[in-house]
Order: sequence, then structure tokens, then C-alpha cells
Amino acid sequence: MTKVLDIRPLLDEVQSLLDNNDIDAVVELIASLHPADSAAVLYELEGDALYAVFSRFDPEYSAAVLAELDAENQVELANSLPPAQLSDIIAQMEPDDAADVLSELEPEQVEATLAALPDAESDDIQQLLAHEEDSAGGLMTSSVITLRDQMTAQQAIDMLRTLRPEEESIYYLFVVDAGERLVGVVSLRALVMAPAHQTVGTIMDPNVLTAHVDTDQEECARLLARYDLLALPVVDDERHIVGMVTADDIIDVIEEEATEDMYRLANLPQDEDVEDSLLRSSRRRLFWLLLNLPTAILAGWVVSRFDGTTAKVIALVPFMPIVAGMGGNAGIQTLTLIVRSLALGEVQRGDGLRALAREMGIGVINGLAFGAVIALLGFLWKGNLMLGVVVGTAMLANLIAAPLAGTLVPLTLKLLRVDPALASGVIVTTVTDVTGYTCLLGLATLLISYLVR
Amino acid sequence: MTKVLDIRPLLDEVQSLLDNNDIDAVVELIASLHPADSAAVLYELEGDALYAVFSRFDPEYSAAVLAELDAENQVELANSLPPAQLSDIIAQMEPDDAADVLSELEPEQVEATLAALPDAESDDIQQLLAHEEDSAGGLMTSSVITLRDQMTAQQAIDMLRTLRPEEESIYYLFVVDAGERLVGVVSLRALVMAPAHQTVGTIMDPNVLTAHVDTDQEECARLLARYDLLALPVVDDERHIVGMVTADDIIDVIEEEATEDMYRLANLPQDEDVEDSLLRSSRRRLFWLLLNLPTAILAGWVVSRFDGTTAKVIALVPFMPIVAGMGGNAGIQTLTLIVRSLALGEVQRGDGLRALAREMGIGVINGLAFGAVIALLGFLWKGNLMLGVVVGTAMLANLIAAPLAGTLVPLTLKLLRVDPALASGVIVTTVTDVTGYTCLLGLATLLISYLVR
Repeated sequence: MTKVLDIRPLLDEVQSLLDNNDIDAVVELIASLHPADSAAVLYELEGDALYAVFSRFDPEYSAAVLAELDAENQVELANSLPPAQLSDIIAQMEPDDAADVLSELEPEQVEATLAALPDAESDDIQQLLAHEEDSAGGLMTSSVITLRDQMTAQQAIDMLRTLRPEEESIYYLFVVDAGERLVGVVSLRALVMAPAHQTVGTIMDPNVLTAHVDTDQEECARLLARYDLLALPVVDDERHIVGMVTADDIIDVIEEEATEDMYRLANLPQDEDVEDSLLRSSRRRLFWLLLNLPTAILAGWVVSRFDGTTAKVIALVPFMPIVAGMGGNAGIQTLTLIVRSLALGEVQRGDGLRALAREMGIGVINGLAFGAVIALLGFLWKGNLMLGVVVGTAMLANLIAAPLAGTLVPLTLKLLRVDPALASGVIVTTVTDVTGYTCLLGLATLLISYLVR
Repeated sequence: MTKVLDIRPLLDEVQSLLDNNDIDAVVELIASLHPADSAAVLYELEGDALYAVFSRFDPEYSAAVLAELDAENQVELANSLPPAQLSDIIAQMEPDDAADVLSELEPEQVEATLAALPDAESDDIQQLLAHEEDSAGGLMTSSVITLRDQMTAQQAIDMLRTLRPEEESIYYLFVVDAGERLVGVVSLRALVMAPAHQTVGTIMDPNVLTAHVDTDQEECARLLARYDLLALPVVDDERHIVGMVTADDIIDVIEEEATEDMYRLANLPQDEDVEDSLLRSSRRRLFWLLLNLPTAILAGWVVSRFDGTTAKVIALVPFMPIVAGMGGNAGIQTLTLIVRSLALGEVQRGDGLRALAREMGIGVINGLAFGAVIALLGFLWKGNLMLGVVVGTAMLANLIAAPLAGTLVPLTLKLLRVDPALASGVIVTTVTDVTGYTCLLGLATLLISYLVR
């Protein structure tokens, strides 16, 4: 298989089996898939069919599939399954996946489910539940393998043979001292290669990058991306190792954060999905468009303040969309650059002034260039030199206002600890609309005697 | 260290050392950093200082740092270094990093550098250079470890001890048959855990996901993301294993692709960087804004066609930015959703019609809602019922045109095998501008007798 499985043909087959009420065949068909693909298929089923199929998987497979489903389906299934069956499934899950599911449920349900688990697992999951969802603690798996620095390589390998750890946890082995504090990392490779009697402390790499449990998941992503790591150990205040964040979790984080920023720049609801029902989407999309209505009306109101001028110089009207449109585009250019640079950590606190100066510089240069072009156009098209001056000046002013707003809005939001992308597109284009119309029509009002012939 | 290193204090120190011409101290300071951090510091230096510092690193460290620098700095350094020193550095690099550097150089330079390398390395690099940069072949490392399925676990471990492979390549061991074709994957863990005499063929997992050398890097990213993998073997047409793509490479791909889509939606140059020089940025930003000028002028020209109507009903003018602005926003909402869904593989060929129907449905519902609101506003504000009807209808029409353009533009670009995000924002807002103005002013022209009192 060299492509992500195309589930559409499968869906057709599942649908026709469901139409014949042949649930057993559906279960057999779906259970033969990779859990990630099963989840993609189940995601498309209606509530009843989803439950009918899912509840017949064995607990181990159910656990793998449940971990891949989205929060909405997880809750739906958790609420439909008999409590004992839910506990059986949760018991089969990795602690981090289990915590993700439980974090979506009601407190009583969480308590009941945890009560049915062995104490060690229940404790593991409860500790994970205590962390913020978007922190290293919320993202990590707690199944890590620690070695003592005083062990020999042979002792370590013997211990691994006894533990038979999960696939995922073995790529990095973390080394702790007598106080259980993280002191280094050793790869299984180094362990296998080393002479049997050498101690782990002498084989390990003491330079180990770590995340604190409270480290934001975006910072974890930056660490892995910058230093090309496949996993990052997570420690508490005493430098005790409590878990590990792996690159595959980070891939999901990076995709989610990028989607979030893009959607916020476009004023789209965060969890919009092409699969959502039409009515649900309309209602939510409507809400976000609604945010834009007052600002659009504001722009209209500004224009209406100059009715007297536009009535006298109708030739100004076609320049309204030109000046406003170019300003809006320039503003969104700057805004997108700043939002993305903030997200990737390329612009940090303290770089703000430099970024502002740079964007303003570009604004002045582009403003002069496009101001000149549009002034010439105004003059040639309408045969009025002063009209050219008015539209050119308005363009210049708007192309300076655009990067100013495009920089200041996200930096201010960042300073207020709000997502720099949130609603910033609406604010920036409102600034450019209002600036563009005010400059164009205001200047025309001042110079009206030169414009009316 | 739990955060990406803040290089600004370091930069100040480096600058003051450079001002004192104390290059040795700068070299010592920078050489103590992680190569990724060194690259971040060197990136900030001017050409002469960059060369003076870099050329004094030892070849091994130079190789690690060069791999982390961006293409522009790589070329600058490669052109400044004496050919022998460049070859020494390239010889120390991983084949995939070496190929990345060489792919940026002139053919004669590549030839000269490769000629100075041992044949095996030169061949490795040449094979990598033959692949498209954004394919699995261009992304992969060729240093993978293959085991024969007939080996015993003990023989395999002994072989690994002899080979002493690189850290990165050992997490997945690929198993080939007598014909050197990939037949499975075995983890070092399974190898260490297995009884010594068992054959690799019986321990391995035969269900191995692969990428073809020509597989697009975005598809590789989707595979790793969907199936939570840390690495993906890359095979040729005969299923011979030729390399491996790892999650840390994919993290870079995902970040780059997300940035690319965001920048394209915002009409920003792809390789824009907040660190670029002002003039260079202005010139490039100007070029992209220039693309927007004809469309802005087109919108202005459409408006000018209705000069007669606007002159008679000046009350229409304030509704121009409202109708056009709301349409533009709704169009960008749809466009962003479709572009992101295409990028994440959530919408594929064949889903287009369904997505279109859904977006149109949302458009009609939102169009009716906002059309009613704006019609009421028009009526109450200007005291003319027919004006309300005109602006409400124009809003409805534009909120239907918006998702139509927002869906069809990226899907058409995709069909034409062009990036769906490319210039699509400009096209969509042009459609909504033109539709909005034409409907508003055209309808007003038809109903002019009811609007003028």
C-alpha cells in the first residue's frame, strides 16, 4: 500500500450490507482494516449503525479504533456502550489515548470507568487527565522505559526482555539517577552495540532535550522540528520523567494548529468539517459571517457620510473598490506573514518593532508605486489631474495603513494572550476599508472645487 | 533545555566579537551550539562574516550545520569554499542532506564535488539527485538497514554490531527476500526479544506500508499522519528498497506545505521571510499585489458602467462595500475550507460535487438570512422599500456566487494539476466583487423608476 486507503468503495459496500441488515458482514469487513481506516469508515456511519458495528469488535480492536475516532464519536459510543464493556475497552488503550477519551466524558462516567480498572492503570490515566489538553502533559504517553544509570548494558537488555514494552516506547530509553531524575537518554542501538559490562551511565547521551509537563504543545512541535527529534521526554518540576511526546503526535498537532490559523484568518469556525451536516454548518458559518456584518456596515456608513461628495463627483465611485481592495489585499499579506511567523516562532516578543518597521517600509514603497499608477489611471481615464492626485494619495495612505494594521493587530492579540489569528482578518480589512474610503472621499470633499467642473 | 534556544542574546555577543574582529571567539562560541541553533545564528550574519566563521569549523560540524542552513546560504557557502574543503564537508554529510545541497549548485560544481568523493557515496548521492525534490525519493535518506528474511535473530544482531549504523536508520529494520524485494519490517525491539535462532522472516511484520520513489511528499505526510508511523520505507518499481522517509522530515514538509497554502491564499510570495531585506521584499510583494491590480480595476470598471444609476440613486453607494465585503468573506470561507480539505486529503477527486452542493446549500441559507437583514436595513435606513429589495437580492445573489466560486476555483485548479491555493483568493474575491456590484447596480438600473423619487 503506497497511498492512504480510499474508503469510498468500502463505504458503498458497507452501505449495501447495512441495507440488507447484514451487520456481521460489516463487522468482519471493517475489522480487517487498519484501525485508522476503520475509524474513517465508521465516521461516515449514522449513530445506530456506528454503535451496532463498533459494539461487536473485540475489546483490543475496539480500543485501537476508539483512539482514532474524533471526540464526537468517542462520546457517542462511550454513552451507548454498557459501562462494563467501556471499561474493558479503556483497559486495552494506551494511557494517553484513554485519557483523551475520558476527558470528553461526564465526571461520574469517568469515575465509574476508572473504578473498574486496575489501580496502576487508573492512576496513570488520572495523572494524565490532570494536565491541560494542549500541553506536553496532555499530549504525552506515560508509557516510557527508564533505566538506572548504574545498570550494565546487559542488565538493561535483560530488563527489556522481561518487560516486553510496547513498540512505541522502546526507541528512546531514558536514564534516571538514584533520585529518579532524568540524567540522559540512550538508544536501544547504543545498548545493543555496547560491551555487556559497561554501565548505562557511560553509554548514555547526557544532553537530552526535555519538555516540562506544562510546556505548550506548539513549543513541543517547535523543539521537535528544530532539532529533528522523534521523541521528547516530559519531566515535572523535580525533573522526574513522567512521559514522552512522540513525532507522530506532533504531526497531528502541527496539522491542527496550521488548520486553526488558516480557519481563523478566513473567519471560519474551528471545527468546521466538509462532512458536517448542512444545517449545522450553515448555522455556524452564519455566526462567523455575522461578526463581519457590523464591520461591513461600518464601512458602508463611512461611505454614506460622504454622500454629498459622491453625488457631485460620481467618477470617484469606481475607485472605491480599487483603493479598498488593494488595501485589503496588502493588509492580509502582512497579517498572514506575521501570524505564520509567530506560529513558527520566527517572530518573538521583542522582534515586533523590527517587523513593524520592515512592513511599514514595504508599505511606503508599494504605496508610492501603486499610488503613482492609480493616479495616472485616474488622470487618463477621467481626464482630471486633481482626481488622479486624490485617488493616488488615497491609495498611498491605504497601502501604509494596511501593513500597520496587519502587524499591530496580531502582535496586540499576542500581547493580550489571544490567538493572533483570531478575527484579525476582519479587523485588518475593516481598517483598510475605513481608511481607504475616508481618504478617498474625505480628500475629495476637501478638494471638491477642483473635481467638479 | 525545554525551549527552542533564544538566539538573540547570542547574536548580540557574536556581533560585539565580530566588531572586535575576534573571529576565533565567534567560532568557538557558535561551535558549542546544536547545529540547528548554529544555523539559526549564522543565518543572521552577513556574507563575509558567515564565510569567515563557517570555514573554520571542522568538516564534521560544518556538515551538520550546512544541512540545517537554507538553500540560499548553502549556495553562498558552497561558492565561497575551496573545492577540496567543500568535498570534505559533503563527504561528512548524510547522503540526503548532501543531495539537497548539491541540487542547488551548478552542474560543473556538482560534478567536481562528486568526483572527489568515494565511488559508493558519489553513487548514493547521484541516485538521490535524480528524484524530484518534492517526492519520496527527494525526501528520503538512503541509509537504511536491510536484513535477509533467512537470517536468524542472532545473525541480524551480530550484523548490526559490525555495521554500527547511524542512529536514525536503526529504528526500523527492513527485511528483503532473495530477490532483494521488500517483504517486511522488523523492529530492533522484536529482534532483541526474539529467541536467538528464530529467523527474521518469522519475526517480521509482513504488513509494511511503503512509498514509491515518485510518491508526492504530501501523500507521504498523509500516510505517516494517518497511520501514526515514525518512518516509511521507499521502494522502486521492482519493490527494491531504496531509502526511508522519517517523521522528522515529514514535520518539515507539513509545516512548509501549510505555510505555502496560507501564503498562496494571502497572495504572498512563497519564500517570503521576515528576515529578508526591505528592497527585496518590497519588489516581490509588489509583484504579487500587481496581480491584484487588474482585478481591482475590473471591479472599478464594472462599477463605472453604472455611473448613470449611482448618480441618480446615491443611496446605493454605501451598500456597495457591504454587499461586496460580505460576499468576499463568504467566498474566502469556502475557499479556505476546500483548499485545506484538499491538502489534508479529506476531499478527493469525486467528492467535488458533494462539497459543491453542500457549500451552495450553506450559501442559499446564509444568503436568505443576510439578504433579509440587509433588505430591512436598507428599507429602514433609506426609507425606500424597493431599495431594500434591491440590496437584499444583491446580497442573496452574492452569497450564492461566493461558495460557487470558492468551491469551483480550487477544484478546477486541482483538476488542471495546479496548486488549488494559487491565486485562488484573488479570483474568488474578483467574482464576488463583480457579482455584487453587477447585481446591486444592475438591479437598481432595471428598477430605477421605483428608486428615484
